[in-house]
Amino acid sequence: MGTRRFTDEDPQLDALYADLADIDLQPLWRLSGVLTGEPVSRAQPYRWRGKQLREVGDRAGRLVPLDKGGDRRVLSCANPGLGGAPYATPTLWAGLQHLDGHEYAPAHHHTPAALRFVFEGSGVWTLVDGDPIHMARGDLVLTPSWTFHEHHNTTADPMMWLDVLDVPLVSYLESIFYEVGPSDEVNRRTAARSAAEQRWALGAGLTPVARDLPEPPADHSPLLVYRWSDTDDALRVLAGTVERDARLRFTDPARGTDVMPTMRCEMQRVPAGRTTTPHRQTGSRVGAVLNGTGTLVIAGHEFDIEPGDVFAVPSWSWLTLASETAEDLDVFTVSDAPVLEAIRLYREEWREEQQ
Amino acid sequence: MGTRRFTDEDPQLDALYADLADIDLQPLWRLSGVLTGEPVSRAQPYRWRGKQLREVGDRAGRLVPLDKGGDRRVLSCANPGLGGAPYATPTLWAGLQHLDGHEYAPAHHHTPAALRFVFEGSGVWTLVDGDPIHMARGDLVLTPSWTFHEHHNTTADPMMWLDVLDVPLVSYLESIFYEVGPSDEVNRRTAARSAAEQRWALGAGLTPVARDLPEPPADHSPLLVYRWSDTDDALRVLAGTVERDARLRFTDPARGTDVMPTMRCEMQRVPAGRTTTPHRQTGSRVGAVLNGTGTLVIAGHEFDIEPGDVFAVPSWSWLTLASETAEDLDVFTVSDAPVLEAIRLYREEWREEQQ
Amino acid sequence: MGTRRFTDEDPQLDALYADLADIDLQPLWRLSGVLTGEPVSRAQPYRWRGKQLREVGDRAGRLVPLDKGGDRRVLSCANPGLGGAPYATPTLWAGLQHLDGHEYAPAHHHTPAALRFVFEGSGVWTLVDGDPIHMARGDLVLTPSWTFHEHHNTTADPMMWLDVLDVPLVSYLESIFYEVGPSDEVNRRTAARSAAEQRWALGAGLTPVARDLPEPPADHSPLLVYRWSDTDDALRVLAGTVERDARLRFTDPARGTDVMPTMRCEMQRVPAGRTTTPHRQTGSRVGAVLNGTGTLVIAGHEFDIEPGDVFAVPSWSWLTLASETAEDLDVFTVSDAPVLEAIRLYREEWREEQQ
Amino acid sequence: MGTRRFTDEDPQLDALYADLADIDLQPLWRLSGVLTGEPVSRAQPYRWRGKQLREVGDRAGRLVPLDKGGDRRVLSCANPGLGGAPYATPTLWAGLQHLDGHEYAPAHHHTPAALRFVFEGSGVWTLVDGDPIHMARGDLVLTPSWTFHEHHNTTADPMMWLDVLDVPLVSYLESIFYEVGPSDEVNRRTAARSAAEQRWALGAGLTPVARDLPEPPADHSPLLVYRWSDTDDALRVLAGTVERDARLRFTDPARGTDVMPTMRCEMQRVPAGRTTTPHRQTGSRVGAVLNGTGTLVIAGHEFDIEPGDVFAVPSWSWLTLASETAEDLDVFTVSDAPVLEAIRLYREEWREEQQ
Repeated sequence: MGTRRFTDEDPQLDALYADLADIDLQPLWRLSGVLTGEPVSRAQPYRWRGKQLREVGDRAGRLVPLDKGGDRRVLSCANPGLGGAPYATPTLWAGLQHLDGHEYAPAHHHTPAALRFVFEGSGVWTLVDGDPIHMARGDLVLTPSWTFHEHHNTTADPMMWLDVLDVPLVSYLESIFYEVGPSDEVNRRTAARSAAEQRWALGAGLTPVARDLPEPPADHSPLLVYRWSDTDDALRVLAGTVERDARLRFTDPARGTDVMPTMRCEMQRVPAGRTTTPHRQTGSRVGAVLNGTGTLVIAGHEFDIEPGDVFAVPSWSWLTLASETAEDLDVFTVSDAPVLEAIRLYREEWREEQQ
Repeated sequence: MGTRRFTDEDPQLDALYADLADIDLQPLWRLSGVLTGEPVSRAQPYRWRGKQLREVGDRAGRLVPLDKGGDRRVLSCANPGLGGAPYATPTLWAGLQHLDGHEYAPAHHHTPAALRFVFEGSGVWTLVDGDPIHMARGDLVLTPSWTFHEHHNTTADPMMWLDVLDVPLVSYLESIFYEVGPSDEVNRRTAARSAAEQRWALGAGLTPVARDLPEPPADHSPLLVYRWSDTDDALRVLAGTVERDARLRFTDPARGTDVMPTMRCEMQRVPAGRTTTPHRQTGSRVGAVLNGTGTLVIAGHEFDIEPGDVFAVPSWSWLTLASETAEDLDVFTVSDAPVLEAIRLYREEWREEQQ
Repeated sequence: MGTRRFTDEDPQLDALYADLADIDLQPLWRLSGVLTGEPVSRAQPYRWRGKQLREVGDRAGRLVPLDKGGDRRVLSCANPGLGGAPYATPTLWAGLQHLDGHEYAPAHHHTPAALRFVFEGSGVWTLVDGDPIHMARGDLVLTPSWTFHEHHNTTADPMMWLDVLDVPLVSYLESIFYEVGPSDEVNRRTAARSAAEQRWALGAGLTPVARDLPEPPADHSPLLVYRWSDTDDALRVLAGTVERDARLRFTDPARGTDVMPTMRCEMQRVPAGRTTTPHRQTGSRVGAVLNGTGTLVIAGHEFDIEPGDVFAVPSWSWLTLASETAEDLDVFTVSDAPVLEAIRLYREEWREEQQ
Repeated sequence: MGTRRFTDEDPQLDALYADLADIDLQPLWRLSGVLTGEPVSRAQPYRWRGKQLREVGDRAGRLVPLDKGGDRRVLSCANPGLGGAPYATPTLWAGLQHLDGHEYAPAHHHTPAALRFVFEGSGVWTLVDGDPIHMARGDLVLTPSWTFHEHHNTTADPMMWLDVLDVPLVSYLESIFYEVGPSDEVNRRTAARSAAEQRWALGAGLTPVARDLPEPPADHSPLLVYRWSDTDDALRVLAGTVERDARLRFTDPARGTDVMPTMRCEMQRVPAGRTTTPHRQTGSRVGAVLNGTGTLVIAGHEFDIEPGDVFAVPSWSWLTLASETAEDLDVFTVSDAPVLEAIRLYREEWREEQQ
């Protein structure tokens, strides 16, 4: 449905258009770009430099206090295509969070779901509904929709990590609810292993049952953290068995579904010297480089990447990852694919001519 | 998370903010309105007048040709809160479609799903993937995502109806695909009863099975039309059995779910002289008045309503309907509730103090 | 796995066999018939004559009192292949129940599910968890597992109907629980239309929703009766649209599934002069002739049938129905197919050479 | 519904009873025991001694050849309550399978599902649809319904293990199909790790995805073996976190459901000196002792148990396990609970007064 092809120099038509505007109607035949042959994305292919993120994160840590009862110290990736909105893609927020030594970010909850991905460091615990989860390099930590969460740093050194949230989506759907935590008390609990892991990380297909164990939550994975050592081991096996383009999907061990209803989390290892088959999917993605250097090509735009880099992949844009050194390239991605699958709009394809 | 409370007159901070802007980052602590206590809607409570819709529809019918291979003659309801976008709410498109006597709107398909609701008239057939469905007063006709659809008018008189689509949602999710029909041939098939009804409208809980009958489609109701006479009969029974605030939900007879994955369709009968309990839900709604007159209150804004009126209910806005004459008020509504339910963001509540 | 092919005249072997018997072990290699190429049924193809059922039912009505707090006056179809058990097939009980004029069968509930199919008469109400359901010719009435049910006859004339239960299955699975009703009071409520129908028989795909309406039960169809007039209308449409071998399946209108988790109910109309394609399925079936006369062939055994006849179809037995008069043949069937589907053992096939 | 309470010395009644018998009907009021207040089990609480199983297994190995193309060398546990049938419970078959050094049991498949549980030894591979799975002490190996399976011993020593199948259930449902393998060739493939493990045992919530990876099978767990080292590790964590009566359920890592649609597999560790809370459930169970000694009480019958013992728990029978030595008691159980859950007949309870 493009622009109509007739010339509408007609006073009656002009009068109609004026009357339509008066009563808040618009003639479809004068609208263009409503139904396009393929998705057209507003977001741009983009990469934020890890080095720069760390540098400004450090400065923010020194300059900006984190008041008690206050906010998070987060630098949000703002995709230049999105008209000034603090969003990495139309549906995903990505930001670098900085917590000073011994600092504390108080409890709150909100309908947007969040996850943390740790580029480096350790010593911070995130409490999810009171369950203390240690955060360390390569770990993925979930704070699902409406779960209370707070962070505290047990060390003297600052720590930074990547936050990804579905804030733009939930904001678009006008379903944001937010509350501060029930208590002003700072909760500085720690534990070597979260309660979530004690029950749900016993191994593939090993599920404890007992009278007094609660049912897994209906809305998200009961396992709230995926440890790098497990992920790394799994990637190693995977790299040895699947020819190419295999990814590791983080899933709900109680149901096999995505970890949260709005975000799909995956980790891809591109072996040294290899390039992935170009792939595209409806909906957008945020990527984060954990290990290795190489090249990222999004819709023809080429970016060199290194650990700590964050990038945005717009909907239906071809994506290729190349590991160009002797080291494997490990890339974490978050997408809105579960949303699109739930409402039957998910499509994906590979560019066959590549090899 | 409101605006930070510290005064940031600090040259170092100014330098940081400038550097952040340079590398497309935004400091969360300077953003306000990201996480609100409750949903804040951009859309306004709004009502479009049926009389005006018909009047401009008639004029458009006289002035604007519908070229072969071309578009639809549709007037789109543009909510004044949405910055000029041709959308009734952030997720829903509503428009009046006009088809002249003997006119034909050629086949196309698109990922946005559509439905038709008929205020008056008859004599137009919509073909959905070739199945001819007659459209008449009070009927609800589905053209689910990616089904080919075309309309033709067998009478000499123009006909108008309400279109509702999830175009804003699918556009936001950057998942619009569109194709014209496979053939230039005008298909003017008619049938007294669609194939969909022959199989799926045999009665509640009566499902034919046979070797050569296809499985119901995975993504939407196999029943593509809900006839007014059936709806009216059901509303009559319902009004006699449920005390108040009962609605009739149009559902997939093969699964009991909503008719399409993105839109919930309901019809509510407010008995003469009655007022509904104020109700609100996350996500937005479009309403259409089929019968009766009365008053509509949305978030405190009062509108008188009559047959043919169309209205928009923003997210989390209190809605009340009052039938003020001796006639029952019949209101058809479409909402995005299935989307919110699928991703676990649906909430609703009733205002208890009312009676 | 047939009998082993070696000669076992060996004293050591004899000693082993004796020792095995002593400690309750059996050598698999001496067992035959455990794993057969195809299902071997113990039940026989069988037909009980409606005339005879009615005649002995009448006599039982005259001779056998139905004590208060006591039992049901039921004559159970005992398949001759089942060693004297009162079962029509290995999984299904079928019996003729007789209720005298003004008589009353008191409330009880049990884990076996039951259904009633009415060959003739009217004037009895079955109360299912208190909801009064009138029973008349051609009606299918459900009394799902663990629902309280009682029957009372409002007329002076006796009434008889067919009961089908999953008693043999639940007995085999050693899961029978039984309790008498909570009250000694005779409940003689009647209603022109059951509450179940008021809510769930509003039409295909028309589902009422309201604050105070309970969720449909998790375990069975909320619609507890399927009326003959609706079934008859649907069969008429079906006969006009599907070439042959179409059946009408009674389904849960809230979910589209079978009416109860253990029994599939269907009605088949064989048009006058037609024969069905031979068909077989794993699991057994009970059939009942409502209208018409003809011939039934089960695994090569031929039976003439007329209204009121009841028959048993063993697992994996070919079944053909022929309507041999000018009248359509209407046959109701109950099978255990939902059980087999749930545990992935259901198979069916048609004999292709037939036409 | 017990036996009727009236005296039926009545010549007319005698005549009726004779006539009923002639036409294969039975009067319900003369039947007793059809609907009991609670389940009544035919099976007996029973324990087979591991020492005896091994002793007769060894003798069978020496005396009974395993012909090519022939059977399995299996000793079936025959519950004395089941009238001579070779079944451990009404729904479950349990047998000790013996394979000589370098011996081979050829491929076949059948609709009954099977699993293997290994008490001791190693060196045998089971190929499931060609995927070689090594069997060693404490491992659980699945051969789901209709998968081809064969066993071969790579060592010079015999090996024995426990087979559990749902043969009685599938036989009762008259749904047994059986075929020998497609090839006469002996397949002696081995692999350090099965393909199933390479993909599905990467860790809790870690699922590989790739273009060329097949979807998990619809009917059973894609993970075909659960290794003792993983189970043991998980039991150790579990024992440290859950107060008592925790069991480890073997689940489908792709869906979180039971490993097969007919059998639930669990492993319970009773810490040294502890006794479990008495528990009962509808449906029957087979147990096998892997480690430790103690006492088993089933419906009041007490049995001392030691490694290698196999036992049968009838439906709705109270079960208690006590570990009476300094060693933990590890007990593997198989039940038909998934069948009962699927058809909504599953109930369970704990005896509260115990501690």
